[in-house]
Amino acid sequence: MRMYDLIMKKRNGYEHSKEEIRYIIEGFTKGEIPDYQMSAWLMSVYYKGMSGEETLELTNAMADSGDRLDLSRINGIKVDKHSTGGVGDKTTFIVAPILASLGVPMAKMSGRGLGHTGGTIDKLEAIKGFNVAISEDLFINNVNNIKLSLVGQTGNLAPADKKIYALRDVTATVDSIPLIASSIMSKKLAAGADVIVLDVKCGSGAFMQDEVSAKELAHTMVDIGNGAGRKTYGIITDMNEPLGCKVGNALEVYEACEVLKLKDLENLDYGIKRLLEVSLTLASYMLMGAKNQSIDKDETSNDNNLNDGYHEKENCLNYEEARRLCEEAVTSGKALDKFAEFVAAQGGDADMIYNPDLLPKAKYIVPVYMDKEGYVASCKTSEVGMVNLILGGGRETKESKIDLAVGIDIRKHIGDFVKGDEVFAYIHADDESVIEEAKKRLIAAYKLSDEKAFPDKIIKGIIE
Amino acid sequence: MRMYDLIMKKRNGYEHSKEEIRYIIEGFTKGEIPDYQMSAWLMSVYYKGMSGEETLELTNAMADSGDRLDLSRINGIKVDKHSTGGVGDKTTFIVAPILASLGVPMAKMSGRGLGHTGGTIDKLEAIKGFNVAISEDLFINNVNNIKLSLVGQTGNLAPADKKIYALRDVTATVDSIPLIASSIMSKKLAAGADVIVLDVKCGSGAFMQDEVSAKELAHTMVDIGNGAGRKTYGIITDMNEPLGCKVGNALEVYEACEVLKLKDLENLDYGIKRLLEVSLTLASYMLMGAKNQSIDKDETSNDNNLNDGYHEKENCLNYEEARRLCEEAVTSGKALDKFAEFVAAQGGDADMIYNPDLLPKAKYIVPVYMDKEGYVASCKTSEVGMVNLILGGGRETKESKIDLAVGIDIRKHIGDFVKGDEVFAYIHADDESVIEEAKKRLIAAYKLSDEKAFPDKIIKGIIE
Repeated sequence: MRMYDLIMKKRNGYEHSKEEIRYIIEGFTKGEIPDYQMSAWLMSVYYKGMSGEETLELTNAMADSGDRLDLSRINGIKVDKHSTGGVGDKTTFIVAPILASLGVPMAKMSGRGLGHTGGTIDKLEAIKGFNVAISEDLFINNVNNIKLSLVGQTGNLAPADKKIYALRDVTATVDSIPLIASSIMSKKLAAGADVIVLDVKCGSGAFMQDEVSAKELAHTMVDIGNGAGRKTYGIITDMNEPLGCKVGNALEVYEACEVLKLKDLENLDYGIKRLLEVSLTLASYMLMGAKNQSIDKDETSNDNNLNDGYHEKENCLNYEEARRLCEEAVTSGKALDKFAEFVAAQGGDADMIYNPDLLPKAKYIVPVYMDKEGYVASCKTSEVGMVNLILGGGRETKESKIDLAVGIDIRKHIGDFVKGDEVFAYIHADDESVIEEAKKRLIAAYKLSDEKAFPDKIIKGIIE
Repeated sequence: MRMYDLIMKKRNGYEHSKEEIRYIIEGFTKGEIPDYQMSAWLMSVYYKGMSGEETLELTNAMADSGDRLDLSRINGIKVDKHSTGGVGDKTTFIVAPILASLGVPMAKMSGRGLGHTGGTIDKLEAIKGFNVAISEDLFINNVNNIKLSLVGQTGNLAPADKKIYALRDVTATVDSIPLIASSIMSKKLAAGADVIVLDVKCGSGAFMQDEVSAKELAHTMVDIGNGAGRKTYGIITDMNEPLGCKVGNALEVYEACEVLKLKDLENLDYGIKRLLEVSLTLASYMLMGAKNQSIDKDETSNDNNLNDGYHEKENCLNYEEARRLCEEAVTSGKALDKFAEFVAAQGGDADMIYNPDLLPKAKYIVPVYMDKEGYVASCKTSEVGMVNLILGGGRETKESKIDLAVGIDIRKHIGDFVKGDEVFAYIHADDESVIEEAKKRLIAAYKLSDEKAFPDKIIKGIIE
């Protein structure tokens, strides 16, 4: 086999065999296939795409390129959630405690932020004492005992993906659906969960700006997950404005705590309502996945002939039931307690969860007014992420240090009318010198119109 | 400017500015743009193409990347011919002496063969004593005195093209019309001729296998040439069987001498007839170009207002007249004398030109018979080139040594009927052990049919 012939084959639109995909990924990872051939091949994939079978094999080959996490010491069905990245996305802090409080083991591996999107690890570090670098033993024990633990991405997980991504990043071959899908899913497969729920963000703050591409990406990832034997759901959610009201590390933990403290889920502020809706939808599918896979597993071990049709079984959990259980986990306060227990188990100050006013605070809290009246019509959401970056709350490069206290608290959402004297948002800043630029860019990120505008629906589709 | 953005721009189908093209070519030649970005860009060019303006600028930038030949010491309009490469193409040895005998200066720079196509330099070295590595002074003096001299490609001519071609060759980005056209034309522009006649081969032995692509390539190259201020013609010629009868280094010089010795241009063997037709067509356009550019030049220097419409002028040379002059150069024996004079001026044995039986001869001359009777219907022409390579007459790699005496002498052409006892061809070999393989592959290269077949017309189009 020669890489030249494989580039030519893909260039001319033909489908690769499994052996060819393995040859490319293994050869490139070992350094036997040079960058310049790989980038020509990646560009051909950009134009010609990949079949479902090719994409699945590509994902498996990348997952096999390094270690696979061994979660066998964790009891029960392991569930994972992945978001394709957005602005103000703090659903992990709501969803994980809900699931853990319902007895579903959550062994989370998370990353740091880069560019306009934040990272779960950074946000958690806003909690005094919280340690993401715990030992593997403590991680496994915590999941078995309290059902929830979280560590930073460690070890040699899908190194092929790392190497390929670095090349795509400099050769304009990032935005290809099979390449994005296989990159995400190779890490998810290597991380070992049995059930995977994907939050595919769609809109001006997301990688996928339109619904058609978001759905295509979701379908591709769900097919990979199911093809690799993991029950996978894709939830397409709106990212045409930040999720919730708050953007910034400590501020997002704050807002997650606010949601977990809710006793009544009706009559909510519109920002909170959208955040809650995304969180409950994700949590419900995760719970369904966990429960039904577990039933499936028990039955398969008893009777090999009952493998299909389990969704119709009596003891099978449907969406409505799962949703009710997740809502109760919030309103009962059990999810909040679980979050506090999780934080304490990793050395964090649990008081901050019950009383989020104790979280780090910025020196300046500055009201922002719009320069005219009107309905909020649209938002360049990634720009709001950039405002947080300007304030010091994000990373421009992997080496940047970040300020956990700063951020933006948005008081108005798409569809709201903004009067001239109404506060549109508050900027939380520590460095006085960047406030004016932050204000200007925040104002410029929004468009106001004289006509009534309507927000997109928050859940745009479910792919399973 | 960032290469990343330029890859993205081309990938998305936009047109580059002149500055962008220069940035890419200069950056890559200097080593500032890495191979992996260049190959991603080349693959985007493969899919998205280039406009005429982009292609012209690409060609100019590559021509400017090294030295440009200074032909100012040569008197008169300099004419150059380029063939895109075929099998049995010995037109240079016929065309150049014709032109020189008519007073047109021919300062030829030629290359060696690789793969299934032969090289002019290799073929000339079949003549005892012939030296292609003469000094620049002797080269210039010979052109001024006898109107014809030929050297190997020397110096730093279009190094950008060399570097880009090496990358294309390993990334499956060779067969792109703007990239092929700019590669050829960058060297032609750097080589300094005023008039360029391109022999664009088309068929089973050529890079362009179909007429549509051959015409597109010819158009693209003619546009580049004219755009760069050189009068350029593109002649599309048939390469669905070898040109003439003989393939092999000494054998091709032999056949060129046979043509130059013709006294009567009627009633010729069909192979010779086709070779003569291509040669006379190319020579006539070269002569027209030289003569009319020279009129144009004289008039421009006398009167700046008479720049257009010169083709209608009284003293302008038309095709019929040019053709008659070229035919006379052959039948009068002047072209043959010129060839001998040229050979002698570069240290070669001129007797070999008048008596080509003195040229190197192979040890074995073996008749080849077809395995059935029928009309010659088609030929995989590049396979005939491969037979010469198997015999030792071509280069597999740049380092291969070649045997100048070996080759193939084909007695039947497309449309001819071959009887069972008729010799189809003679194989000229020095190594007995390769004869059987050579025979087998030669027979397999041709298809015979029961129905009468017809050859393609030899001149398929003129682009100017």
